[in-house]
Amino acid sequence: MRALQHPDVEDLRLPTVLSALADPVRLRIVAELARSGGIVCGDFDVPVSMSTLSHHLKVLREAGVLRVTPQGSYRKHELRRDEMERRFPGVLDSITSAIEAP
Amino acid sequence: MRALQHPDVEDLRLPTVLSALADPVRLRIVAELARSGGIVCGDFDVPVSMSTLSHHLKVLREAGVLRVTPQGSYRKHELRRDEMERRFPGVLDSITSAIEAP
Repeated sequence: MRALQHPDVEDLRLPTVLSALADPVRLRIVAELARSGGIVCGDFDVPVSMSTLSHHLKVLREAGVLRVTPQGSYRKHELRRDEMERRFPGVLDSITSAIEAP
Repeated sequence: MRALQHPDVEDLRLPTVLSALADPVRLRIVAELARSGGIVCGDFDVPVSMSTLSHHLKVLREAGVLRVTPQGSYRKHELRRDEMERRFPGVLDSITSAIEAP
């Protein structure tokens, strides 16, 4: 499985990150990743088709929010928490905490 | 001057707030408001026309990020910092701090 492109941490842009996060399904994906540590593609619990899920994961990856690593025939998805924290301190963590707000 | 509508704090939605903030000009407006405390419309230092500025201010107001108060023949704009902090702790503050990241 070919490796996917990920932006370098110094190339992350705040408007792009916020735009990637400004969607209810993508926030749910981020919340799941925050809780679980890492998820392979078929294991996300979101009410969308696989192709829609793939699109959302791509938006988050291209914005620098998550990293995708091939694992055998699967792809593992993890938040780039440490890098995001270094680049935009508190932003991803506070948003992750706020996702569960009623 | 008629009063403008502002969403109640319990009606603020995280995707809407993030979407409002996911724009370089609106982030610049927010940074200016964070620095200054409050700005009347003609005093923003952003490289856009007055009608474009008005549009951006409306998006931020409708998302609940700022409050507009008539002051004589002007409108004063202020961040709704305390309410945002209560609803989504750390989100607006961390984003405001991150705006200046290179």
